[in-house]
Amino acid sequence: MENAERLLLDLVDAGHLVPMGIDGMYGRGAAFEDTLLRFDAYISRSAKDDGATLVRFPPVINRRDFERSGYLKSFPHLAGTVFSFDGTPAEHQHLLETVEAGGDWSATQKMTGAVLCPAACYPIYPTLRGTLPQNGRLFDVFSYCFRHEPSKDPARMQIFRMREFVRISDGDSVRPWRNMWIERAMELLTAIGLPAVSAVANDPFFGRGGRMLAANQRAQELKFELVVPIASEESPTAIMSFNYHQEHFGSTFGIQTSDGAVAQTACVGFGMERVTLALFKYHGMRVDRWPDSVRRVLWG
Amino acid sequence: MENAERLLLDLVDAGHLVPMGIDGMYGRGAAFEDTLLRFDAYISRSAKDDGATLVRFPPVINRRDFERSGYLKSFPHLAGTVFSFDGTPAEHQHLLETVEAGGDWSATQKMTGAVLCPAACYPIYPTLRGTLPQNGRLFDVFSYCFRHEPSKDPARMQIFRMREFVRISDGDSVRPWRNMWIERAMELLTAIGLPAVSAVANDPFFGRGGRMLAANQRAQELKFELVVPIASEESPTAIMSFNYHQEHFGSTFGIQTSDGAVAQTACVGFGMERVTLALFKYHGMRVDRWPDSVRRVLWG
Repeated sequence: MENAERLLLDLVDAGHLVPMGIDGMYGRGAAFEDTLLRFDAYISRSAKDDGATLVRFPPVINRRDFERSGYLKSFPHLAGTVFSFDGTPAEHQHLLETVEAGGDWSATQKMTGAVLCPAACYPIYPTLRGTLPQNGRLFDVFSYCFRHEPSKDPARMQIFRMREFVRISDGDSVRPWRNMWIERAMELLTAIGLPAVSAVANDPFFGRGGRMLAANQRAQELKFELVVPIASEESPTAIMSFNYHQEHFGSTFGIQTSDGAVAQTACVGFGMERVTLALFKYHGMRVDRWPDSVRRVLWG
Repeated sequence: MENAERLLLDLVDAGHLVPMGIDGMYGRGAAFEDTLLRFDAYISRSAKDDGATLVRFPPVINRRDFERSGYLKSFPHLAGTVFSFDGTPAEHQHLLETVEAGGDWSATQKMTGAVLCPAACYPIYPTLRGTLPQNGRLFDVFSYCFRHEPSKDPARMQIFRMREFVRISDGDSVRPWRNMWIERAMELLTAIGLPAVSAVANDPFFGRGGRMLAANQRAQELKFELVVPIASEESPTAIMSFNYHQEHFGSTFGIQTSDGAVAQTACVGFGMERVTLALFKYHGMRVDRWPDSVRRVLWG
């Protein structure tokens, strides 16, 4: 973790990240934000002929859909739920006194219909209930995502942006599409000087049962990642992931192909903050001193 | 509210908003998002010589700073707090069974260190503890904000974006700066065909005590809004607000001017979704048919 803390200090000194007094939560400075948005535009250019439908979801989503999604089975420890106050003036007084005394005011809060978005693709599936057109659909989504895992590693934020492409169709279309993206993404990242390596991966499933889920996910090669050392050489950071969900979301949300089969889905996700951090790590804290080749690709 | 529901239907039919199964929460379609980002760039051009420091905060912020901010005194009913699970596998099993049975699983969730951001300027003040440089500071912030007020009016979303400029200095600098922005903003909005009107306003303070706070805020002209009819002619919607906080944030977060006085603050906020909705309302659902004068300003 020492390397992680040094990198974080460098980023803060350079004004790229602004500490907010809590691990894994930062303001983004002008150069950080500009770099992230340039990388985002670079992704758009690379995918411009794919014909994806663009939707931008907010960072909170519908709790009922989230309950159905299965996220709480696999990652209950990472999910964030939104609570609020709907009490009386007297209860408000009690809330304020508890806050004033530095006490625990959680009992004044009630669960709302909103949860934090856990991954950019989650809100798209519930909108697709029914039968897909022939050849299925392709979406381009992007949103802030929350994962409750406070860490001093700047590459493990609690709140970060994810850009994803999501393919919803039959398995014969979905799996090759995901594999095409692994190749394309390697080229994209190589062109901006990031030494990414692809690897079979697994999600951080909760609890003992999670170990079996992880082993199964690996055996079936359902998840790949592109990893780059950021805060540590030994445990490189995933900056992209490529996930084949089989029939999970199709059966959960009642999505059928035009042939009447349960739809299969896959997604390709860019960790936008992680890619940006990798760029600062590899090319230095001053964007004006980055290699010409990298600047040309991003700032064209 | 009938007009609000009709407008919402039009927006959904045109693909500008994507329903998420809960009032006040929508995905944004491609033309909506493009328009919003073009308006954002237009704001940037209009303020480019002001020398503001750009910081982009995420949609959740530090709960401790939020507790200090006074938001819970005035708007407890609008705040969103983030809860999460940190239980055992047995408690996880209970959580899943409760979800499965359609029950209330809120008791499985504990308050975290994060709350939803209530207004784009809130996270900047805690970063400024100490003494300001001469002439103070000027910030450019933008973030998703949450307010727990489910509504069928598309102009009253629970989760929406706010762009703000924030001036932190002495009262003699801060107040004229705010007034300058009221003039500038009127010109900005007129140029894109929005019939905005400026008005003294008050915040939606909670409870009976709130009425006095509101009256006081009006009497001192601490808050102005630019309003435009969107869903209703009788109660036009605030698409911008101009707030003079006097010493509130300066004393709360220990910010001094270079002369050693408690800093005063003011902010100028654009409701990004509301401006975008107003553009669709006034110029129609098809961006390619908007008046040339408006298209020229936004798409240059």
